[in-house]
Amino acid sequence: MSKQRLVVIGGVAAGMSAASQAKRRKPDLEVVVFEKGPWVSYGACGMPYNIQDPSRRIEDLVVITPERFRSERGIDVRTQSEVIELDITRRVCTVRQAAGESRVEYDQLVMATGCKPLNPPFSGLFLAGVFFLHTLVDAERIKRYLNDNSLEQAVVIGGGHIGLEMADVLCARGLQVTLLKRSDALPPGYPEEISSIVRAEFERYGVQLQPGTQVLGFEGDSRVRKVKTTAGSLPADLVIVATGVEPQVGLAVQAGLRLGDSGAIEVDRHMRTSIDGVFAAGDCAEAFDLLAGQGKFIPRGTTANKQGRIAGANVVGADKLFKGVMGTSVTKVFGLAVGHTGLLDQPARQAGFDPVAAFIKARTRAHSYPGAKDIAVRLVFERANGRILGAQLAGGEGVAKRLDVIVAALHANWTVEDLAACDLSYAPPFAPVWDPILVAANVACKKGGWG
Amino acid sequence: MSKQRLVVIGGVAAGMSAASQAKRRKPDLEVVVFEKGPWVSYGACGMPYNIQDPSRRIEDLVVITPERFRSERGIDVRTQSEVIELDITRRVCTVRQAAGESRVEYDQLVMATGCKPLNPPFSGLFLAGVFFLHTLVDAERIKRYLNDNSLEQAVVIGGGHIGLEMADVLCARGLQVTLLKRSDALPPGYPEEISSIVRAEFERYGVQLQPGTQVLGFEGDSRVRKVKTTAGSLPADLVIVATGVEPQVGLAVQAGLRLGDSGAIEVDRHMRTSIDGVFAAGDCAEAFDLLAGQGKFIPRGTTANKQGRIAGANVVGADKLFKGVMGTSVTKVFGLAVGHTGLLDQPARQAGFDPVAAFIKARTRAHSYPGAKDIAVRLVFERANGRILGAQLAGGEGVAKRLDVIVAALHANWTVEDLAACDLSYAPPFAPVWDPILVAANVACKKGGWG
Repeated sequence: MSKQRLVVIGGVAAGMSAASQAKRRKPDLEVVVFEKGPWVSYGACGMPYNIQDPSRRIEDLVVITPERFRSERGIDVRTQSEVIELDITRRVCTVRQAAGESRVEYDQLVMATGCKPLNPPFSGLFLAGVFFLHTLVDAERIKRYLNDNSLEQAVVIGGGHIGLEMADVLCARGLQVTLLKRSDALPPGYPEEISSIVRAEFERYGVQLQPGTQVLGFEGDSRVRKVKTTAGSLPADLVIVATGVEPQVGLAVQAGLRLGDSGAIEVDRHMRTSIDGVFAAGDCAEAFDLLAGQGKFIPRGTTANKQGRIAGANVVGADKLFKGVMGTSVTKVFGLAVGHTGLLDQPARQAGFDPVAAFIKARTRAHSYPGAKDIAVRLVFERANGRILGAQLAGGEGVAKRLDVIVAALHANWTVEDLAACDLSYAPPFAPVWDPILVAANVACKKGGWG
Repeated sequence: MSKQRLVVIGGVAAGMSAASQAKRRKPDLEVVVFEKGPWVSYGACGMPYNIQDPSRRIEDLVVITPERFRSERGIDVRTQSEVIELDITRRVCTVRQAAGESRVEYDQLVMATGCKPLNPPFSGLFLAGVFFLHTLVDAERIKRYLNDNSLEQAVVIGGGHIGLEMADVLCARGLQVTLLKRSDALPPGYPEEISSIVRAEFERYGVQLQPGTQVLGFEGDSRVRKVKTTAGSLPADLVIVATGVEPQVGLAVQAGLRLGDSGAIEVDRHMRTSIDGVFAAGDCAEAFDLLAGQGKFIPRGTTANKQGRIAGANVVGADKLFKGVMGTSVTKVFGLAVGHTGLLDQPARQAGFDPVAAFIKARTRAHSYPGAKDIAVRLVFERANGRILGAQLAGGEGVAKRLDVIVAALHANWTVEDLAACDLSYAPPFAPVWDPILVAANVACKKGGWG
């Protein structure tokens, strides 16, 4: 009997996790990974910070090289190899490489094609100096452009985490930065109590914020010089377009895989697609939103890694479940961390909840200990019964892991009373005796009539 | 009908929380607090850090002064007032003040007498320069002794959090510090994997560690000069005795309140003692250990605040429950935070569990982001079913709030599989894509056969 072959399409987080897991569990499986770009297994979320530091090479973001995957893990990684067609019935994929096209048979398939930037209707999108930041190739181009040119004015379009991080990074590299975005909310969908803290942080660092300004396009000569907007033109030596992403599902659609309502590949909790023997994981696939109770497109590196592992295990006969996500997200913006978990107000209402919020401002350490920072917690709960629906936090330290306590509370289906009773750690360097999370929970209890 | 009177004995965390809560809920209640010391409402856990900073006054630790309790909250706070006798049947207490003794009637009573240092069998315990650190008066004496004398050698006795913090603080004030303790475990009861990290941190900062050395006593002239031990004498200009605490229950015993097996006052989850109309809260009372399933003596500022609030609410007819504790604790030791939640191995076995541990070392940030620190996580779970029993952590940052995620997991009765599925936050400045907690949970799953 010939060796079974697993083909994985896409070699970043989900793809390499799936490949590694399958190979580890079944060493005699032949595992082939096709990645259309030149690198695999890189930390895409680290790209802004690599761009920030001129002394670091872009390759530092690569966790494991294709060579090491081959020699240490026995995984056949083929870069610059784009799968352009899938014959699901015959289990054959067509791969395009520099040398030409070839057909590769497989027994099982994991789709890990990720997501791609939305293509906004801006003119001049392909002028030199106008960039998306999506792949390591993009990061390398931006970094080279920064290193090779004397740049003064940067315009960042979009208030999502890439927009926020790149505004921060470009300031750190000495550019004057303008951030253009559709609404006042920053990040998008965030409530005003938190948005106003983020906006103030941008102003503190001299970033121009222009919410409500609609971009029309870019103008320049050999390179970009101006951003045209509904409110006039802005000078720009560098433009980052960060207006959102969508799942990369062209191949999946061609192959006949069913998509979910979100536009990402429909998967069950075993990461199986609608076609037998085909799994999907990572940004191209839906993640089950535990609060909304349905599959959603929520691209995250963490989810991609978890889903990839599960797909890789199940490919070789395990019975692993991906339980689902809370939509957790956190971003550094200058001296601030801002993040949320659970449902923002609008999606909460869409999911049939009646959300109420308790908003508090506190300090991150006891008053007896120096160096405390401000922190704001907005805890959202269901009016009728106090069930926690989510939270948004912004603060100078200790935000991400405080958010994680609420993540755990969400997974456990807690009420605000359950959270208030939590025996959280305390020492003056790390928290006040009433941690900001407990203060928020107490305020929520009072507001809901359970105080 | 005359006004009802609540008497609270003890004016630190639990006492002032109870007094404030009762008065807030029932403004026409007369609330009298007797505190034997000169200060109320101070952050005892902040004392080491105040001692560290010569520029801060010890009074900075006072959150609310007696005057403000009177004028802003209408609470009659009497300092330097020791309750020396309780007539539970007649509801009268005898109070000793500088001016003499008086008898005060009450309708309801909250005992919040706290804990006190164990009195170790050391000779010369009352030499100048030998200190306990328990009250603000102790802190003030230590600070004045440091400020007024030229000191070189300090000896700290005890490896609990006061011992660890004072060793750190005295180093920061320029003294050569020796830490004497009974066992290698640091903090006491901690497993070797974590203890060794803490010991290495002490060595990095030049603290002499002498585990296994038994102290006999102290010698000196006008002040302490030497610590006599079973391993010879040590020079000492300053000694901190931090050999543990016990609940302060003399008055409770005299009044006939029932004590629990732990030696602290027995309370139900409403903070009611064995005698009608008498509540107890804080370090003098038991805290219900949710994992061990019984009342324990686990003195904590957080617990005191929570129990005090609940006692104060229930005194005036509310029906609040104190759910219980996980024994969570965290301490700063030089550049390290070390802490635990849940049961350490020995207590876990005593409670009938069969604990297994997953131990991992990781980094606190993604490799793409500068400044990451080491962190170690030891996750303890029940062999048979993977239920989480506790965790010990040590690391350079992000320890306390990671511990809190496990606190939440304990409250939710999670298994290591539940924890591994948790949608924790991720961004390179705050965590690797697999947070150390998830890495530990994954290792635990594998070890237990659920991987």
